[in-house]
Formats: sequence, C-alpha cells, structure tokens
Amino acid sequence: MDGIGIAGAGVAGLHLGLLLRRNDIPVTLYSDRTPEQLGSGRLPAAVAHHDTTLARERALGVQHWSAAEYGYDVHHHYVGGPLQARFTGSLGAPSRAVDYRMYLPRLLRDFTDAGGKLDIRSIAPQDLTELSQRHELVVVATGRSGLSGVFERVAAKSPFTSPQRKLCAGLYTGVAAADPPGVTLSIAPGDGELIEIPMHSFAGSVTALFFEAVPGGAFEALVETDQSADPAAFRDRVLRVLREHHPSVHERVEPARFGLTDELDLVQGAITPRINEDYALLDNGRPVVALGDAHAVVDPVVGQGANCASYSAWQLGQTILQDPNFDERFCGKVAERRRDRVHATSDWTNLMLEVPPPQHLLEMITAMSRERAVADVFTGNFNHPDRQWDILATPERTRAFLSRMS
Amino acid sequence: MDGIGIAGAGVAGLHLGLLLRRNDIPVTLYSDRTPEQLGSGRLPAAVAHHDTTLARERALGVQHWSAAEYGYDVHHHYVGGPLQARFTGSLGAPSRAVDYRMYLPRLLRDFTDAGGKLDIRSIAPQDLTELSQRHELVVVATGRSGLSGVFERVAAKSPFTSPQRKLCAGLYTGVAAADPPGVTLSIAPGDGELIEIPMHSFAGSVTALFFEAVPGGAFEALVETDQSADPAAFRDRVLRVLREHHPSVHERVEPARFGLTDELDLVQGAITPRINEDYALLDNGRPVVALGDAHAVVDPVVGQGANCASYSAWQLGQTILQDPNFDERFCGKVAERRRDRVHATSDWTNLMLEVPPPQHLLEMITAMSRERAVADVFTGNFNHPDRQWDILATPERTRAFLSRMS
Repeated sequence: MDGIGIAGAGVAGLHLGLLLRRNDIPVTLYSDRTPEQLGSGRLPAAVAHHDTTLARERALGVQHWSAAEYGYDVHHHYVGGPLQARFTGSLGAPSRAVDYRMYLPRLLRDFTDAGGKLDIRSIAPQDLTELSQRHELVVVATGRSGLSGVFERVAAKSPFTSPQRKLCAGLYTGVAAADPPGVTLSIAPGDGELIEIPMHSFAGSVTALFFEAVPGGAFEALVETDQSADPAAFRDRVLRVLREHHPSVHERVEPARFGLTDELDLVQGAITPRINEDYALLDNGRPVVALGDAHAVVDPVVGQGANCASYSAWQLGQTILQDPNFDERFCGKVAERRRDRVHATSDWTNLMLEVPPPQHLLEMITAMSRERAVADVFTGNFNHPDRQWDILATPERTRAFLSRMS
Repeated sequence: MDGIGIAGAGVAGLHLGLLLRRNDIPVTLYSDRTPEQLGSGRLPAAVAHHDTTLARERALGVQHWSAAEYGYDVHHHYVGGPLQARFTGSLGAPSRAVDYRMYLPRLLRDFTDAGGKLDIRSIAPQDLTELSQRHELVVVATGRSGLSGVFERVAAKSPFTSPQRKLCAGLYTGVAAADPPGVTLSIAPGDGELIEIPMHSFAGSVTALFFEAVPGGAFEALVETDQSADPAAFRDRVLRVLREHHPSVHERVEPARFGLTDELDLVQGAITPRINEDYALLDNGRPVVALGDAHAVVDPVVGQGANCASYSAWQLGQTILQDPNFDERFCGKVAERRRDRVHATSDWTNLMLEVPPPQHLLEMITAMSRERAVADVFTGNFNHPDRQWDILATPERTRAFLSRMS
C-alpha cells in the first residue's frame, strides 16, 4: 500500500500533502491540471489567507510571500442604506492575498521537492475503489468531476438549495490603496456586497474587486455581462456599480488608469453553499475522507473557504500522524476535531448572506461603528470563525457580548 | 442570577467548583452530605488518581498528598488460567490513591476557603427548575437521588443492562508491598479480577483489595458474604480467594497481620455501566449539564471512573471560562470536547469486562508479557484512555500496534 492518496491540488490537498511529506509519510497527489495549467488560464478565485492559515504555511516552510511585505492589517467597512456606517477593525496580525495561479503551482513544487508524488489525472467517483486498493487512505480534496456527490449532504447544516449571491471577481489597476492599506467590505443592503482585496498577482500589486450580487438586486446585471463581448461596456458597468453602491471604494478609483489587468483576470459564477458528511464508505468497506470543497462549500462573502479548508487539512493531517489506523474511529476523530470550526464558518457565512440581515447582526454592526474595540474583535475573528459564531450564533449571545464589551 | 450551581460534591463537582473559583466565578455546591458525613462512615470506593488527574490537582493548588511521597510507579499484572502470565508495566509518572473520606472533605474545605458556597441539601430531579432560575447554569455531578435519570441513556454506548461484576472493595493490613510498590491487576479468567492498590487512609499506608466477581463465578460468594455477621469467616473467604485465584497477591500476605482495617472499610455492591446524554433541557428551555456519574458510569475494573469525571469536569470548566453563554451551542461544545475521552474510557472498560476476553485482548496481554515496552504503553495509557482505545478498538488496530512495536 502506497501511503496517502489525495485527489485535488487546491489549498486543502497541498497543505495536507505538505504536512504529511514534512513527516515522511508517502503521499500521491492526483490533479486534473498540470502545474502549468494551474499557473495560467482564468483567475480561479480571489482569496486572502489570514494569520491562522499563514501560521500553517510558516510551519510547512512555504511562506514565499511574507505577510510583512505583501500583507495588510485591517478591514475597512462601509454599510450603505439607512444604517450608513463606516469603520475600521484590526486583524491583530496581517493577512495576505496572492493570486492562486502563483500560489498553487509554487506549493505544488514544494510538495514534489519534498518527495511528494504528483499524478496528473482526473479522478471520478468510480475511480475511488481502485485508489483505495492502492493507498492506505484516500482523501478527496476537490468537489470537481462529481466528487462532491460521493459524500452525503448534511441537510441540517445546508439551508440553501440555490446560490444566494451571483459572483464576479476580477483583478484591476487604478484603485488607490485604502489608508491604512487593507480589505474593504462594502455592504449595499438588499443588493449585495463588494469585497476589495489588495492582492499580489502577475502584474505585481493589484486590486481584487469581488462583487457579491443578490439575485434580482441592483448589480446582478454586472455578473451577467459578457466582458469579452464589450470590454468598455463592462468597465463602465463596474464603475457605475462602484459609484452608486460602494462609494468608499469608488472614491479611490483613478478613472484614467482603472481597468481589468487582463481579460483572463475575471471570473463570474455562483455557488450553492453546502456541508457534506465527513467521510463515505466505499462498497469494499474502505472509508474515503472529504476535505475542502468536497466537505464544505461556503459563499466567499467573508472569505473563509480556503482558510477553512487549510484548517481542516491540518486537523486531518495531525490525526493521520497520531493515529494511522484508517477506520471509522479515525474518521470520527477527524470529524470531531474540525466540526466546530467548519460548522461555525458555514453558519457565520450563511448568516451574513441573509436578506434582510437579522436584527442582532445589525446591532453588532452598529456597535462596531461606534466602538473600535468591538470592530477589532469582529475583524480579528476572521482568524477564528468559531469565536465569531460564539458571538453571532443567537441574539442573546450578541447582546451578552456587546454588554461585556461596553 | 448566582453563578454556577453544581449538584454533587464528588470529585467531578469539586474539581469543577475549584476550577471556577480559581477564576472568580461564583459557585454553589449542593451536597446531600455534610463535610463530616463525607469524612466518615463506610468506605465509598477505592480510587487511584493517575498523573493526568494529579496534574489538574496541581493546577488547582490542591496537591495535599504528593505522588512523590504517597504514589507508586508501576502496575504488576498476573493472568491465571491457560495464559499464565506475569509482567510489570510503568505508568511513566506516579499515580496515587487516597481514601475519599479524607480526600473529598479536604477539597471541599479548599472550595469553601476559595469562596465557594456550600449548601447541604439533597437535590432531586424536581428541584432542577428552581435551581435553573437561581443559577446561570446548573450542573448535575451526581447520579444519586434519581438524578442520573434526568439524562437520556445513550443506548449505542451502553451495551449492558445489568452489572457485569459484583464488587467487594476493602482496606486491609498485612499485605506486604509489591516490589517495586504498585498496583497489582490480577485476572482469574472467567471468574473475575482483583485490583490491589496501595492506599493512604486513616490508618496510614494500607492495601485496598478490590474484588470484581463475575456473576456465577468462583468468587461471587465473597461479595455476598455478610462480613459483620461473621468477620472471621469473611476473612477466611478472602484468604481462600487470594490463595486459589490471585497467587501474586497471596504470596505477600502475612497471615498473622492480615485483616480489614475497620469493619466500615468495606463496600460491597454492583453497578450497571451506562453512558447518558451530555445534557437535558428542562421544561423552561434551560439546559442542565451532566457530569460524573450523571453522565458516565463505568465499572471500576480499570479504575477510570474518577479520572474520567475529573477530565470531564475540566473540559466543562474550561468551556465555561471561554464561552459563558449557556445555551445548546455551549452544551454541544462540552459534549464534543469530552466525547472521545469519555467514550474511550467506557468502551475500553467494557472490553475488559468481556467473558471470555476477545482474542485481540489476549494477543495484547501475551505481547505485554513478552515485551516490557508494550506493557509500558498499556500501563501509561491508564492516563490516556483515548490512546488505549486507539490500540484496542478493533483487532486490526491491536495487530497494527503490535507490529509497529516489534
């Protein structure tokens, strides 16, 4: 039997593979894309890693873009509509965003440099039995090629059956940095959100603008605009949405320089949030563990998907190191160790998607706009979704937190 | 609302109460016995605390009987019948046994000295609503007065509906210490076990002999003998069981000095192992958390009950300190944090009770008798029942462990 087999070369598969290789466990990573394909093509996502994720990168020896140089320390908030609030919160330790077309191939090279095997091959559900005969444990770390369907959907943790936002993420020049530099979370109540992220990409420092459009809301049309058919019309539409709904970003736009960095630096789509069971049993009785998108798909509105996948990979990896008996007891341990963090990530994200926002979230936002200390806790908790959910899980919890803070 | 209310002044209630008081949380402990009653009367049990429990006592500042002075470092094993094995394993760090009639009142004084409130009052199920109105959180840390029945029995983790052993624990003089001093676990296959524990009691250093008799087995009669009716006959019966079934203890008996230290230093009975749900919701919607015997009752055959109760109290206490929002999310966290350890304690204990023993346990015992390193892992794992269960949960796990060790 040849060690651990991991399907999927995203952040989950790579962080797990690297952790295991750093501990001399044989690992084969199955990727349906070559390193060259991962390093080119259309923008796959716009992802920030928070300090708890960066700490894992440091532990793995893969901190190729230091947060001190490439990172930022704050989240700026703008809330439109009747609330009209503007405030800033500190992350506590810097976060950092690097284009995944640079990040993933670099970590894949770290993985093969560390003795990990790379097999360029698309894995479908019907291939898992063969993999289970080859490897001591099979991990599915991608939802592609129908692999998400291998794991049962957990209905109690998956309230939605359709996308709650339509997504449009692109890389732009011509947006001056906020002061101090940081992410801007801009909420247009009822219509959606914009997440602006300072990102390192092929062109150097660029600005990711990630629009989250409520279906039927004022900027849904943006997501459905075909950029390549009429680039100028698309650019105008982006500028109009910024001007009308996201003034705290628009005020930093230099119109003469504003535009997509490349026509491939744009991705449009939609996802349905979903929590799957932690593992599945194959017909031969062997368990297959779900990781990353095969386990939890969350809307990007608070940017937690990759951070959650990395956390989950770490818990799985530590359990492999401590208890290499790949049976149901093993799978139950993995489930227990990551459950609170993964469910809290999903529950918090789903709360942020509610239209209209629940009353206690509005109370929290109002308090953040008045008290920097409250905004700092909320912002720092982007590192700790479980602690965020401790505050936001119920109106009673939010009020108890705000009363402790005042 | 007056802080935390805890029903039950056993090790679970006391360790929890002390942890909370060390962090300035108001606590009221409800005990149906006065400190004087806890400190006198019939022997309540014969309990050894392992190093992981002693570490909690050190953290609480209640190490009144240091393991260096009162403790021991090894477990001696004797297995009769066809296996005929004799071997010793190291605990890694010393364990220690003190008579609970000294231990509990002393910790109760520590608790009240630390500002904890003591209310001498028997709590019954119908009192819990009143308590829930008085306290922010109510913890039930005793199964007495019908309180165990407040929490639903978890059938999947409670395989037995009747006692698997009849118990007879007493304190004796006239048993010379083993070399080196330690606990002896003596197994008479098919008939039961004897656990011999060096214990500190009112008379100083004494020997606890804890007979576990299989119903219908060769020493069931001992448990049913009325000691007070004919002390000499009882003593003779103990000596005969030692001679016939537990030679590694019997060889250290000095007949002229052998006998019970006091007629109250004997307890006979039987318990049905049971795992209960972690919490119950009262009619008013308030949760009540189960701890100690209200949560998990395990047979004493591997002496884990009190250690498990202390572990569980610690997890509950840490959760109270970190997230003082006493709702179902809180209860779910407590459940998740202690589940693996509590279930592993129960599953391991239940495995040790099986008659005849399962094949893989016999393989483990044989390996221990041949390899000191294997015996040391097994013995050290009295501190870590979850790790013990990692080895013993399935035949495949035991064989994988033994193959790694050889």
